[in-house]
Amino acid sequence: MGGDRAPEAPVAGAVAFARAHPDIDILLVGDVPRLAPLLKRVRPQNLSLHHAQDVVGMEASATDVRRRPDSSVSVAIRLVRDGNADAVVSAGHSGALLTAATLGLGRIEGVDRPAIAALLPALQHRRCLLVDAGANIECRPRWLAQFGVMGETYVRRVLGVARPRVGVLSNGEEPGKGTPLTRGAAELLAKSDLDFLGYVEGSDLFSGRVDVVVTDGFSGNLVLKTAEGTALGAAGLVRQLLQRSGAAERLGSMLLEPLLGGMRRVLDSAEVGGAPLLGVNGVAMVSHGSATPRAIENALKAAAEMVRVDLQGHLTDALRQAQGWLTGTPESGKPATEPGV
Amino acid sequence: MGGDRAPEAPVAGAVAFARAHPDIDILLVGDVPRLAPLLKRVRPQNLSLHHAQDVVGMEASATDVRRRPDSSVSVAIRLVRDGNADAVVSAGHSGALLTAATLGLGRIEGVDRPAIAALLPALQHRRCLLVDAGANIECRPRWLAQFGVMGETYVRRVLGVARPRVGVLSNGEEPGKGTPLTRGAAELLAKSDLDFLGYVEGSDLFSGRVDVVVTDGFSGNLVLKTAEGTALGAAGLVRQLLQRSGAAERLGSMLLEPLLGGMRRVLDSAEVGGAPLLGVNGVAMVSHGSATPRAIENALKAAAEMVRVDLQGHLTDALRQAQGWLTGTPESGKPATEPGV
Repeated sequence: MGGDRAPEAPVAGAVAFARAHPDIDILLVGDVPRLAPLLKRVRPQNLSLHHAQDVVGMEASATDVRRRPDSSVSVAIRLVRDGNADAVVSAGHSGALLTAATLGLGRIEGVDRPAIAALLPALQHRRCLLVDAGANIECRPRWLAQFGVMGETYVRRVLGVARPRVGVLSNGEEPGKGTPLTRGAAELLAKSDLDFLGYVEGSDLFSGRVDVVVTDGFSGNLVLKTAEGTALGAAGLVRQLLQRSGAAERLGSMLLEPLLGGMRRVLDSAEVGGAPLLGVNGVAMVSHGSATPRAIENALKAAAEMVRVDLQGHLTDALRQAQGWLTGTPESGKPATEPGV
Repeated sequence: MGGDRAPEAPVAGAVAFARAHPDIDILLVGDVPRLAPLLKRVRPQNLSLHHAQDVVGMEASATDVRRRPDSSVSVAIRLVRDGNADAVVSAGHSGALLTAATLGLGRIEGVDRPAIAALLPALQHRRCLLVDAGANIECRPRWLAQFGVMGETYVRRVLGVARPRVGVLSNGEEPGKGTPLTRGAAELLAKSDLDFLGYVEGSDLFSGRVDVVVTDGFSGNLVLKTAEGTALGAAGLVRQLLQRSGAAERLGSMLLEPLLGGMRRVLDSAEVGGAPLLGVNGVAMVSHGSATPRAIENALKAAAEMVRVDLQGHLTDALRQAQGWLTGTPESGKPATEPGV
């Protein structure tokens, strides 16, 4: 109910997903008198409505959700908490979802702070996962190390990358670079069983060199928005140059459309649909406030896949196994002589 | 002498610049026995050699330069200090230049920390200046406010923008966003006479909305490298899509070259040539270690322009006028009722 295009876009995306996946049940949580008319002629059998009378608007503060137990996001989180739903997808206030999910579902054992994981577009190489993309503005080294464990598990289990490479975002590759935060995180991750590359740079987000890039939520937001702005600017520049050079006319729409369409497909955030919230006890996807039906549909697909592969179970296992090196307990972490678990 | 392509690329760039600007004298500072053979047949009248027997290599620590008074960068800085040169351009170790310039030239009064100012490519809109692009990893609010004053002066005096708009890079536009650093900087800049927009986001670096973006050197490096990586990735994607769609053949080199050439020109850092080091008592340009002759030539052009418009004088004035609001002295800053100086 809370997004910029709510409730129309989420409803349309949910309907499209429900039709394509008759084996998956969709619960639309929100103001039934407003939702029902949108479904008059198009309601699939596997889509049902669940009433929530309140809405946390986009202008609210994230903590408002604590005092709004009847808001759609609070009700949806309770459905997951009580086992009546397997996952939640929201294009509403992302801070409210984060707060409601953290308080309502609790954290996976060994997680200090849940984080938002943003899957970047591939451009020429395979995708890179950025954690944290904005949930935690000021971080501690251990949190970043936990983001690394969770991001690695996501990329391995959901994206199927056999041995994801993990890096800490910094201002240069040499160990002397960075801040106390990045140095602390890198020291911890160097003790892990992960394929840890050390420091990586902003240019590596699209170089294909690394699969999981760990950072604080402030820096994560900066680089994510910078990449979006640069990609949009570059796409606009290409269009401008195509027109000026006369290439647009010469090519005609037959060839021009696949080119511009290809760029749109790669750059369009709707293709990813949303960002998983990693570290809470339940599957939750944060979609953009302006998510299109196509973005909602893709977010539902991603959420269903996270449930199918039992991501939560794998995250729980990975964090349990990481406790040794994360907390400095000597009996775990990288094995000295014998291979570990 | 210190860059990845030294001394050949700097020599070639200096020769090209000297030829095009017979009214400007160029001093090549370095190992004369190595430099002289490169100039055998091509030495313009206004280009002379100045010997420096030592070199700070790219692998050195920035502070090594303190113990290397005979290094090319130290000798070049002394030429500026003693009034024997008006500006220095270096494609060597940027940390060494920063250290040598700060120690050798001293800081402009009212500057706590000199900063690197990176001029971003325009893509579709006019250029944006990012300060600090990497000199100061951990910053204080007052330093960021000083970066704003210096960046605004640069854009106004060197780029000729009448009333540059200044923003603080943050993870959202609302005043509640950001970190203690960004909030402190924004509070200070809100008291200034600058056209201060408040917080801007990573996407604004190419949106044309802001002329000067202020940030700490860690974040500045992250977004600069991210923009570079995204732009390169997008350019590669365009080439790939052009080839796949058959457009490349259909267009032929007559139309394809202007397109790819246009992208190269916009994205190529050689077009900017280098980044000015703002806040030291002298004009200094930091070029990339792998700077091409064209980049060196453009860096020399920019340095000459900084001298021509008396940027140093304007920076000194601007910082003097900013002392009131920067230090909280009540008699200066934004006038309460009467218009100020």
